[in-house]
Amino acid sequence: MAQLLDLNSIRSVLVRLEDTIIFSLIERAQFSCNARTYQPCAFSNELPGWQGSWLDWILLGTEEFQAKARRYQSPDEYPFSNPSDLPDPVLPPLEYEPVLHEPAVTNVNDKIMQFYTQEIVPSITKPGDDLNYGSTATRDVETLQAVSRRVHYGMFVSESKYRADVDTFNTAIKANDVKTLESLITKPQVEAALLKRLERKARHYGQDESQGGSMHDMKVDPEVVVRMYKDHVIPLTKVVEVEYLLKRI
Amino acid sequence: MAQLLDLNSIRSVLVRLEDTIIFSLIERAQFSCNARTYQPCAFSNELPGWQGSWLDWILLGTEEFQAKARRYQSPDEYPFSNPSDLPDPVLPPLEYEPVLHEPAVTNVNDKIMQFYTQEIVPSITKPGDDLNYGSTATRDVETLQAVSRRVHYGMFVSESKYRADVDTFNTAIKANDVKTLESLITKPQVEAALLKRLERKARHYGQDESQGGSMHDMKVDPEVVVRMYKDHVIPLTKVVEVEYLLKRI
Repeated sequence: MAQLLDLNSIRSVLVRLEDTIIFSLIERAQFSCNARTYQPCAFSNELPGWQGSWLDWILLGTEEFQAKARRYQSPDEYPFSNPSDLPDPVLPPLEYEPVLHEPAVTNVNDKIMQFYTQEIVPSITKPGDDLNYGSTATRDVETLQAVSRRVHYGMFVSESKYRADVDTFNTAIKANDVKTLESLITKPQVEAALLKRLERKARHYGQDESQGGSMHDMKVDPEVVVRMYKDHVIPLTKVVEVEYLLKRI
Repeated sequence: MAQLLDLNSIRSVLVRLEDTIIFSLIERAQFSCNARTYQPCAFSNELPGWQGSWLDWILLGTEEFQAKARRYQSPDEYPFSNPSDLPDPVLPPLEYEPVLHEPAVTNVNDKIMQFYTQEIVPSITKPGDDLNYGSTATRDVETLQAVSRRVHYGMFVSESKYRADVDTFNTAIKANDVKTLESLITKPQVEAALLKRLERKARHYGQDESQGGSMHDMKVDPEVVVRMYKDHVIPLTKVVEVEYLLKRI
């Protein structure tokens, strides 16, 4: 528990997730936009009775299986599918010491799904349809899960900051003072450093090393990665952090 | 079809898979060795009646689901599980023009599983057990599938080389002359360039860019990646290439 709430340890998880997210985006960018993947009922011939999109179907199948492997027992993992549709784990629960204050669940995966499919996918892929629906959705699931973990990790950040200054936070929470809570958890210097680091990483990992590191054929546009964090990941993390705090006492 | 058998196009798939394989190894290296994951029957309490390892169980669940999404209809995808244990796709088959000569199936996934679990995992991970069995096996599946695709792509390489010089190959095939076939498909200069490129990529992607690119904390040892290709991936690809050719006429 001590380790989970240590800010340095939290930071190293978040920094490591940046790599995972960039790697996943690079993998996704190999395939075309494949918009059909994201349209509800577009596969109703192949999946009779299924009202969601092809991606929703792949997500449910993946999460059903991962739920059996205990994924959603972990306090930093939230499913995209309806939790009541998921089976129980086959592994006995790990003994997690309760770290977060209950009820901790603030699931913003629907918002992640929205910006990812509507804005990020069209920005990193070639337009059109290459029929690789299986590969496409597999890469989407990996990216969505990594982004989801990144955003929901905000609850650990909140808890850690809360414990470091209980009185100040309690005052703001009791007054339902969202503005103050936001300013208490916002560190502009940390955010600026994050965006700089992210740009450097995306540029680094996205280079085509096959040619000895040419800058021409970037596998994913570093600007899109930075914008995704700036416009979505960081603001959504703050939503999670504030909502968590408001329910904290 | 023309594109699938164009050597430049094949080469770009193989070069791209190098990135995927290195990324997957980096992701796997975050977790401990977790040897229990690979031991048959080690999870017999949690999975009553299951004789395989935890990884085998995760592989079967993943492949069952991916089979529904048409993965194993693709001529370059081979399952690790017994194909007769896998369900039919829910998507109609893509109209692949037959590219490979039938019977093309030379599945060496058991050999890939062996070197990966016995040699690669212990070389890239911390020793011991961190209980992250779900995450571990998920990363293993990604790596194994990428390596499998890389190795089995050898059949396309063979077919392409065969078509470029039918008479020479036919003579060697008819004489069951494995030595000559091996020398016909071996390009020492290409292999040397591949290993050099691989080392550069592993060094590049494995740098800890969080610190601005320090060379100290490599996320995966470039030597292990190079050795994996030199001792296993390249020789196994040749096995696949030669076996494919021997069945070609």
